[in-house]
Amino acid sequence: LRNKKSNIAVIGDGSWATALIKLFTNHQVEINWYIRQDEILDKIKENGRNPLYLSSVKLDMSKINLSNDINEIICQSDSIVFVVPSAFFHSTYKKIVRENLNDKILISAIKGIVHEKSKIVSDFLITEGFSSDKIVAIAGPCHAEEVAMEKLSYLTIASENEVLAKDVAGILSCNYIKSSSSADIVGVEYSAVMKNIMAIAAGICHSLGFGDNFQSVLLSNALNEINIFLDAVYPLNRNINKSAYLGDLAVTAYSQFSRNRTFGAMIGKGYSVKSAQLEMNMVAEGYFGTNSIMKIVKNLNIELPIIQAVYNILYLNISPYIEINLLTDKLK
Amino acid sequence: LRNKKSNIAVIGDGSWATALIKLFTNHQVEINWYIRQDEILDKIKENGRNPLYLSSVKLDMSKINLSNDINEIICQSDSIVFVVPSAFFHSTYKKIVRENLNDKILISAIKGIVHEKSKIVSDFLITEGFSSDKIVAIAGPCHAEEVAMEKLSYLTIASENEVLAKDVAGILSCNYIKSSSSADIVGVEYSAVMKNIMAIAAGICHSLGFGDNFQSVLLSNALNEINIFLDAVYPLNRNINKSAYLGDLAVTAYSQFSRNRTFGAMIGKGYSVKSAQLEMNMVAEGYFGTNSIMKIVKNLNIELPIIQAVYNILYLNISPYIEINLLTDKLK
Repeated sequence: LRNKKSNIAVIGDGSWATALIKLFTNHQVEINWYIRQDEILDKIKENGRNPLYLSSVKLDMSKINLSNDINEIICQSDSIVFVVPSAFFHSTYKKIVRENLNDKILISAIKGIVHEKSKIVSDFLITEGFSSDKIVAIAGPCHAEEVAMEKLSYLTIASENEVLAKDVAGILSCNYIKSSSSADIVGVEYSAVMKNIMAIAAGICHSLGFGDNFQSVLLSNALNEINIFLDAVYPLNRNINKSAYLGDLAVTAYSQFSRNRTFGAMIGKGYSVKSAQLEMNMVAEGYFGTNSIMKIVKNLNIELPIIQAVYNILYLNISPYIEINLLTDKLK
Repeated sequence: LRNKKSNIAVIGDGSWATALIKLFTNHQVEINWYIRQDEILDKIKENGRNPLYLSSVKLDMSKINLSNDINEIICQSDSIVFVVPSAFFHSTYKKIVRENLNDKILISAIKGIVHEKSKIVSDFLITEGFSSDKIVAIAGPCHAEEVAMEKLSYLTIASENEVLAKDVAGILSCNYIKSSSSADIVGVEYSAVMKNIMAIAAGICHSLGFGDNFQSVLLSNALNEINIFLDAVYPLNRNINKSAYLGDLAVTAYSQFSRNRTFGAMIGKGYSVKSAQLEMNMVAEGYFGTNSIMKIVKNLNIELPIIQAVYNILYLNISPYIEINLLTDKLK
């Protein structure tokens, strides 16, 4: 990617997609941007700004080619960046003619799980027949809004192909982005899924009146749970305190702006899942993540009390008050 | 402690001292409270409230005996809880006739270092000839203000004497306090010192305009630094993600109310150390901690970039802007 002028497809038009496009245009690349809705596409063409997300960001349109045809976008590109909400990844993927993806570099910037298959994106792509050598994940901790404001942020680029991970890290780096590479793509992807569930838990507890002392205990136990899960599904001598794990968890769980935390806060106030989703006009990624992780946990001999509590509240309709009070006895 | 009616001396009259007294009075204990200033002592006697700290807390005065004579207080007690600001611990200690402490249980609730000796409290007491078997430390994560409000909080009680640690944990537990015990008294004490320095760093970075993405990376790297330091001074197979380490760090570094963070924020805005201390009318514990930890690090072959940066800013007058920008290249 780094040495030649490269063509990158961006599949997605939310805030993180917009932030990544801003980063890519710092380099000598051409971006083929798939925009599903024509009215959005026209607005971007007209103003050089995404009207719905990070509209303060002026994009360098000389490097951006827009289309509402996902297969055309993919055929024009060497590397494909998937950056749709995880809930829509599978339906978006199904629009793509499988052969068009042959030999492409597949980059996931999706912070969630393919819930229809209960798989993280890299595992899903491997079962679709792609080589792990060509699969990359972009991990946080990174609120898109701060990238838009050019606040210093750190990214972790993970792939079993470490040369490729370093290449992608290079193309995302600039004076306000420091990127490092990691071979633990499975670990950083699962961690990104689980931190959303932990943010739901933090939101629920906030609404129930728990304070900062408790939230910090919840954070410690959440990180331990993520570590226990990762050790069980993908044992590796990883340092769970690195920013791709602990940092990503902390920025999500402590942020008042996290959609997952907001969703949890509504659940903690007594909203049903349906009414919270209606009110927010979106689906928090951790909602699906909870169900998928619980499916995976069934086959493992481990206990994840926080995830279990969130599952019981969201899927079994147990009262948050009762469930979290039971949880408090399991935390340390 | 637990089985018989016990006499506990509390040496200190700040918010944490007041919160601990509230907890002790839940049990069948008698508390001998050393109050240095007569006017404060009189006010407490009159109103059953500490006029300066957590004045919303009504204390059970039937269990509390007050005196301005520290040696009298100590002679009347089996267990001595030290809970003064670390900056005043050594001068307070020197008022005590050494023999009066013989055979007493010595409990430190001090979240800082004995800066005159560059030692944590337990190490200081051991060099004074006391047995580690009788020394206990009370560790967070625990803002006193939330204990006053009876918000669920978790304490870690550490001692090489695990039976004693469990006893003290029992006497501090109640429906809103869960206490667990640990043998890693050195680890939790150093961690409590270092988290204050990390909170200064977080405050400096906040004032320099760094955002949440960066703060979460700082938190990850801070925990790693604490772990590296603890491994060097006191190797142990400890889980640094537990609440006494990570939780205590998180609640301090992320809290807008942390005095250390506030101190750091003033330094980041350009205040000198002297003017920040004058403005705050107090000394942030992390200021002394920084100097002491750096003295200890000199004899160890490790690098602690965040602590070093804070030291360079506070003690060598390097500009926060320059120092933190150098630091950003060392974080991951």
